[in-house]
Amino acid sequence: MFSHNKRLQYTVRVSETNPGLANLMLEQFGGPQGELAAACRYFTQAVAEDDPGRRDMLFDIATEELSHLEVIGNIVVMLNKGAKGRLAEGVDEAGEMYRSITGAGNDSHLTQVLYGGGAALVNSAGVPWTAAYIDTIGEPTADLRSNIAAEARAKIVYERLINLTEDPGVREALGFLMTREIAHQKSFEKALYAIQPNFPPGKMAGRPEFDSVYFNMSQGEGGAEVRGPWNDGAKWTVVSDRVHQAAVDGGDGGASVQLSKEEAQLLDAMAARTMSDPAAEPLTGAELGMTGAAASPVRTPG
Amino acid sequence: MFSHNKRLQYTVRVSETNPGLANLMLEQFGGPQGELAAACRYFTQAVAEDDPGRRDMLFDIATEELSHLEVIGNIVVMLNKGAKGRLAEGVDEAGEMYRSITGAGNDSHLTQVLYGGGAALVNSAGVPWTAAYIDTIGEPTADLRSNIAAEARAKIVYERLINLTEDPGVREALGFLMTREIAHQKSFEKALYAIQPNFPPGKMAGRPEFDSVYFNMSQGEGGAEVRGPWNDGAKWTVVSDRVHQAAVDGGDGGASVQLSKEEAQLLDAMAARTMSDPAAEPLTGAELGMTGAAASPVRTPG
Amino acid sequence: MFSHNKRLQYTVRVSETNPGLANLMLEQFGGPQGELAAACRYFTQAVAEDDPGRRDMLFDIATEELSHLEVIGNIVVMLNKGAKGRLAEGVDEAGEMYRSITGAGNDSHLTQVLYGGGAALVNSAGVPWTAAYIDTIGEPTADLRSNIAAEARAKIVYERLINLTEDPGVREALGFLMTREIAHQKSFEKALYAIQPNFPPGKMAGRPEFDSVYFNMSQGEGGAEVRGPWNDGAKWTVVSDRVHQAAVDGGDGGASVQLSKEEAQLLDAMAARTMSDPAAEPLTGAELGMTGAAASPVRTPG
Amino acid sequence: MFSHNKRLQYTVRVSETNPGLANLMLEQFGGPQGELAAACRYFTQAVAEDDPGRRDMLFDIATEELSHLEVIGNIVVMLNKGAKGRLAEGVDEAGEMYRSITGAGNDSHLTQVLYGGGAALVNSAGVPWTAAYIDTIGEPTADLRSNIAAEARAKIVYERLINLTEDPGVREALGFLMTREIAHQKSFEKALYAIQPNFPPGKMAGRPEFDSVYFNMSQGEGGAEVRGPWNDGAKWTVVSDRVHQAAVDGGDGGASVQLSKEEAQLLDAMAARTMSDPAAEPLTGAELGMTGAAASPVRTPG
Amino acid sequence: MFSHNKRLQYTVRVSETNPGLANLMLEQFGGPQGELAAACRYFTQAVAEDDPGRRDMLFDIATEELSHLEVIGNIVVMLNKGAKGRLAEGVDEAGEMYRSITGAGNDSHLTQVLYGGGAALVNSAGVPWTAAYIDTIGEPTADLRSNIAAEARAKIVYERLINLTEDPGVREALGFLMTREIAHQKSFEKALYAIQPNFPPGKMAGRPEFDSVYFNMSQGEGGAEVRGPWNDGAKWTVVSDRVHQAAVDGGDGGASVQLSKEEAQLLDAMAARTMSDPAAEPLTGAELGMTGAAASPVRTPG
Amino acid sequence: MFSHNKRLQYTVRVSETNPGLANLMLEQFGGPQGELAAACRYFTQAVAEDDPGRRDMLFDIATEELSHLEVIGNIVVMLNKGAKGRLAEGVDEAGEMYRSITGAGNDSHLTQVLYGGGAALVNSAGVPWTAAYIDTIGEPTADLRSNIAAEARAKIVYERLINLTEDPGVREALGFLMTREIAHQKSFEKALYAIQPNFPPGKMAGRPEFDSVYFNMSQGEGGAEVRGPWNDGAKWTVVSDRVHQAAVDGGDGGASVQLSKEEAQLLDAMAARTMSDPAAEPLTGAELGMTGAAASPVRTPG
Repeated sequence: MFSHNKRLQYTVRVSETNPGLANLMLEQFGGPQGELAAACRYFTQAVAEDDPGRRDMLFDIATEELSHLEVIGNIVVMLNKGAKGRLAEGVDEAGEMYRSITGAGNDSHLTQVLYGGGAALVNSAGVPWTAAYIDTIGEPTADLRSNIAAEARAKIVYERLINLTEDPGVREALGFLMTREIAHQKSFEKALYAIQPNFPPGKMAGRPEFDSVYFNMSQGEGGAEVRGPWNDGAKWTVVSDRVHQAAVDGGDGGASVQLSKEEAQLLDAMAARTMSDPAAEPLTGAELGMTGAAASPVRTPG
Repeated sequence: MFSHNKRLQYTVRVSETNPGLANLMLEQFGGPQGELAAACRYFTQAVAEDDPGRRDMLFDIATEELSHLEVIGNIVVMLNKGAKGRLAEGVDEAGEMYRSITGAGNDSHLTQVLYGGGAALVNSAGVPWTAAYIDTIGEPTADLRSNIAAEARAKIVYERLINLTEDPGVREALGFLMTREIAHQKSFEKALYAIQPNFPPGKMAGRPEFDSVYFNMSQGEGGAEVRGPWNDGAKWTVVSDRVHQAAVDGGDGGASVQLSKEEAQLLDAMAARTMSDPAAEPLTGAELGMTGAAASPVRTPG
Repeated sequence: MFSHNKRLQYTVRVSETNPGLANLMLEQFGGPQGELAAACRYFTQAVAEDDPGRRDMLFDIATEELSHLEVIGNIVVMLNKGAKGRLAEGVDEAGEMYRSITGAGNDSHLTQVLYGGGAALVNSAGVPWTAAYIDTIGEPTADLRSNIAAEARAKIVYERLINLTEDPGVREALGFLMTREIAHQKSFEKALYAIQPNFPPGKMAGRPEFDSVYFNMSQGEGGAEVRGPWNDGAKWTVVSDRVHQAAVDGGDGGASVQLSKEEAQLLDAMAARTMSDPAAEPLTGAELGMTGAAASPVRTPG
Repeated sequence: MFSHNKRLQYTVRVSETNPGLANLMLEQFGGPQGELAAACRYFTQAVAEDDPGRRDMLFDIATEELSHLEVIGNIVVMLNKGAKGRLAEGVDEAGEMYRSITGAGNDSHLTQVLYGGGAALVNSAGVPWTAAYIDTIGEPTADLRSNIAAEARAKIVYERLINLTEDPGVREALGFLMTREIAHQKSFEKALYAIQPNFPPGKMAGRPEFDSVYFNMSQGEGGAEVRGPWNDGAKWTVVSDRVHQAAVDGGDGGASVQLSKEEAQLLDAMAARTMSDPAAEPLTGAELGMTGAAASPVRTPG
Repeated sequence: MFSHNKRLQYTVRVSETNPGLANLMLEQFGGPQGELAAACRYFTQAVAEDDPGRRDMLFDIATEELSHLEVIGNIVVMLNKGAKGRLAEGVDEAGEMYRSITGAGNDSHLTQVLYGGGAALVNSAGVPWTAAYIDTIGEPTADLRSNIAAEARAKIVYERLINLTEDPGVREALGFLMTREIAHQKSFEKALYAIQPNFPPGKMAGRPEFDSVYFNMSQGEGGAEVRGPWNDGAKWTVVSDRVHQAAVDGGDGGASVQLSKEEAQLLDAMAARTMSDPAAEPLTGAELGMTGAAASPVRTPG
Repeated sequence: MFSHNKRLQYTVRVSETNPGLANLMLEQFGGPQGELAAACRYFTQAVAEDDPGRRDMLFDIATEELSHLEVIGNIVVMLNKGAKGRLAEGVDEAGEMYRSITGAGNDSHLTQVLYGGGAALVNSAGVPWTAAYIDTIGEPTADLRSNIAAEARAKIVYERLINLTEDPGVREALGFLMTREIAHQKSFEKALYAIQPNFPPGKMAGRPEFDSVYFNMSQGEGGAEVRGPWNDGAKWTVVSDRVHQAAVDGGDGGASVQLSKEEAQLLDAMAARTMSDPAAEPLTGAELGMTGAAASPVRTPG
């Protein structure tokens, strides 16, 4: 179970209110790379995890991410504090209120008009957070790689947000949050590599005739054709001939299914009923609507 | 630009129609770990990429994933072929049609009633594909890790699907698709580690006082407290004391903002107007609705 | 900040695995009336709240809801534990695995194939949780009413789930969770009525000529016309005459805007260009496609 | 403004309750081709329309679609009426309730557990209705074509639903609803062709060198290469040579932008920092995780 | 069934076009607290309702909300009328058009470029309306509370919109719409309290040992600990001791399930295969990517 | 299968970077009428199509749309190229970065902060692409009409985008893309009318007594009542009498279902338990919260 401590994990000191900056900070509150996504990702993994080490670690980090959600939420709320009062009390002249709401130049109007200056679980464009952001699939050699990647992404978004503000208190708190993503990535890396083997992920081996082939699918002038360790060297077989890229099983490259007699008959009936006749020369709706056609008696036979 | 070759990359041979199995296969057509997600992920990265090696590789793999989308789509369509004809021609008795539509035991009714036995870009629960599944953020040391994780997830889902069917043609084609995820993961790994340094991702260094700390946030009886390389050893400082987990900057753990005088006045006005008075003893709506209260004249003063 | 205690708030004892029941329980994990929705609702309100009493209460209840999320998540995971192992190890025959996956008769196939038997943040139909479920708007006299309603809804969904299972351990834990919704509703009621006045919500008064009018918009035979306290008595003015239901301001019931001369000219140009001519007698695409038309030489003038 | 008449536009007589059939009927209540989509589509067009004829027609049809929404909603509700009482009163044994909830073989569990046997604005897979289904763009020659297509789709889904049930009252009401889609399509066709010209849609002409070209992008063995009126005859220029399908403007087929000096320098800096070095021979995470690698001292340098 | 009267319920008189203001007004057209949500909420309840009084009232109010949707839609359309003509006729210079489209400072560019100056069912950030906004669950003591809360929220959003504009005609119409939310709330309150008892909602009683307990989950310095009627007085038992907040059933706070022998064996096999070995000292991908590591021969063993 | 050619289908030459314009161009990359929607629409139809002519055509056009997606993606990326470098290298002063990010006046902040200056699959408001945009239902006489409409919509959105920019290279490429939509519409028209009959779509005939009726549902002063070919002439029967618009089957306009005895009993029990008593005169929560009520001893009986 969870407990709450009234102190934040990191003190938040904001120099002045700024709803436009608040709106950008929402990326790490209700955005795809933000702290709710992180907390939900690790919490759902923890609950289903049977390995004692990973379970313990996942609860540790999930709980810390919840605490980070609170830190970034407080940054948003402090930056919006001026807007909150103005909006609730409604004492400004209407024109001034309109200018202040729309003047920040991004989606801060939403945070104000719809959310009253609070911290909503939306990204900086106002898109509501969705669990579609979470890619947990219940297999540790995949999920830990997903976690490593998620920490890397969150680190980058914090880096971008830090570059956007001169407010020292905001920068300091964001710097803490960014750094913790680095630490978490290190933990997940250790937990992944403490599973051996961990590649290929899962239990089933690949088919050896296809697991070291590189299909050179993009060719031609107009861009470089580059060979590097990702497609070069003794470990790779490169297939550039387009004929050999198709039907690599040696079959005809078609798709087929064995139908029952009744199934086949119904499909034939459908085919006959809905055939687009190649030999037709139909007049079409588009032609009825063309300017030139408009001069023709065909169009308005009435 | 793209070209299309009428042969599939892998021949699809299905033994008999089965709309329930078709529905499960949709996971890799329009599901979060499926081939559309893969193709869109690498294509969008390729278009924005300036590094010639990565750009070339990303177009190669994106194009192959589109070809895989076609293979899995053909598996779905072949498995649905019987349903398609029955539905379009509508010659069954209504009761039999109803039983065949609802009898598969999963969401195949949707594929049939709404999509007419086609291959829709939904997952096996009928949820439409969304670009929220794609986590590209435009920084290669993050995006390549995201790609590595995505390939690992897709590999696992294919493994699960293979375990669900005895149809040799379906198993063979799924085995090919699964194997290619392994090969792609290897390419992305090489491309990532060919960037040096690639950790921490991005340009900004972490704050050293926080990047090797492990906060032991989950404690108490009821579960194991495990130490492993993810939180143990010389590289980690473990903080288990809950007092030291809060306000780690040494501040008071509060959140503050400097308000203008006008902002402060408006917030005070709002606070006064909306205070929940701790000294009140209010009768509430819930009490009006309780059974006992119903006996009281207060409730229906009429 | 948050801490985690390895013990659950309520012990979960499940008698036997049942992925179909697990799937139904997801309603209160990742469904619209479930515990993530509750936790996020109160947490976001708490972070933005300035009133000390409500802030304290909201953090108390948000934290408890997170603990409930863990309890319901553990119920889901325990019910899925058998499916998790079978799926990961893949030792069943394919046909048997298929039957076990699809046999539960609801969306448990998704939890298994996509989520590996974990507890995903989706509802029982597999729809990912979305922050669109949260209706916080940053005004306490509205938000507390929203909270009261949310607790009432969650209570009902728990009641329905309890009726679905005979497993005594699951019933007991669900009964605890259901009861806590009652307790939370009582707290929110008290906090609402401790604000005085709290109706109408917000700061702006209604227009007195319209705030006690009841428009009788649904009329005619085919259903009862009922008068009760919601539209009857001295406090209500009922308007049943349909003429007096329209343009209640006494105007012409139209919509108008003052356009600049240039705006008016452009709209006129658009109108002329896109007029659907009432005097036309056009042949249409539909007519080209009718069976009867098919016999006509008009259709294939070629 | 709208008024409501307590009689339905079409009498609904259902022979017996059936929550599984109710669930399928939701396609036309809250599904993408359903009546809410139709009503919202025409209503939003009507409100913005300046052409008096189209505006009048759009309000007529929008209002009828709302009335159809009520008819299909009543079908759903009647089919669910038995489930509603059982669920609310909870008098069945739990095991029997579970079997009745999950036994219908599709997503009817959701309608019952979450929606209490009501008519929810979801499709038959439980996906909430979204305005993303509506493709109105505010240009009549496009919107009328969208409406024509929408009516055609709705007609087909009704046809499929009729084939699913033997209940004469349900079939009769569905037959009425299906027929009205035909009538509406005819009206929209007339309104479209009463605009002259209406093709190409909009105001801007196409570039003549490209508006009658057909690019033969899909080639090769494995499928038929068919010529018909859509790509054959005097009106079409077919380009099959793949060299002439690229860079059809005669340029180099590249993408370029003129950068300022500062922009170019920053991009160069980024490129240098993030280059995937083609000459590297990096050890990767995947290799650290391979079984064979596990035997190597490299992996655990401890 | 529904009928449409060509007069609006309230006359709309707009002083001048303003696409930025139009965009904000979308909150009450296609936003979560807007009129479509209200109409759909009450309409779906009405259709499923068996109580004659509530059914009549719900149809009355649903129909009025549809009429309000038309009023707010007309406000949006009038404010966008200038943009509509400019966009359709395209006679401005491109630079001027661009400035006018992007100059409003919120999401009005979407309404113009995608929706052609119409009234789209999106909120002010362009997010499509979703039925996820509707929280109807088919139980009147919950649904009426949801309706009460929904009216309160809508009232507040109208209050905020009124504060944003000086246009007297817009303010007057918005004032009417706001006032009607007050009247509707009053009706729903009467209908709720005319059910006795209505608390706790539903049929099942809570467990008495838990329904008057208040868990004090948020503690510590950094914020006020406040007691008020929501957690104070004879009716409440407050539990502040964190030991007594966990495993409140007196159990061990764990989660367990009785597994079959086969299930247990498979889980053991999975555990062994996927253990993160606490005793490992693995080299990780992160270390391969660190700057310092880059100097090491380990990285490029080639 | 697909192949990729490194040359674009149309050369992209951008004069200068402009992230605000890039954001608007996203409409045709990840927006509802954009190229991903087009490619997915035709690709999914092609995979399921059995008619050789349509299948060939659909693959041809799907492949071209993928190539267009690449063209518009390159336009977005080139316009964002300056932002990409500034953001990644972070060398600007924070204040300047903030102004450049928020200054474009639309949602370009999202493309930059979240997507790093790439081309994300979102529309110009930042809403992620969803397969809900695709209306394929697997019946050619409906799907071809949907394709015709989709091409018309895409043509219009390109027209609007062309009007927004003076950059000759961007205008030229957009003009090519717009023109191709015209050509595609022509192909789909031909394929539709080459099916005979194609109206009404599908296999089932309408009920003749209802397929030529026009219900005049919108009446009254306040707007024109217009007769045109869509509701006028020998082919139409217009029903304006509102009595004859209801219960058009001649029934009572009610909805009924035959219940089992047990079902009826449970519904009666529910009705009795949840009746809103018309004769009640309940005090409500709203009254408890009114200012006037606040003076009453009823409110705080404590």
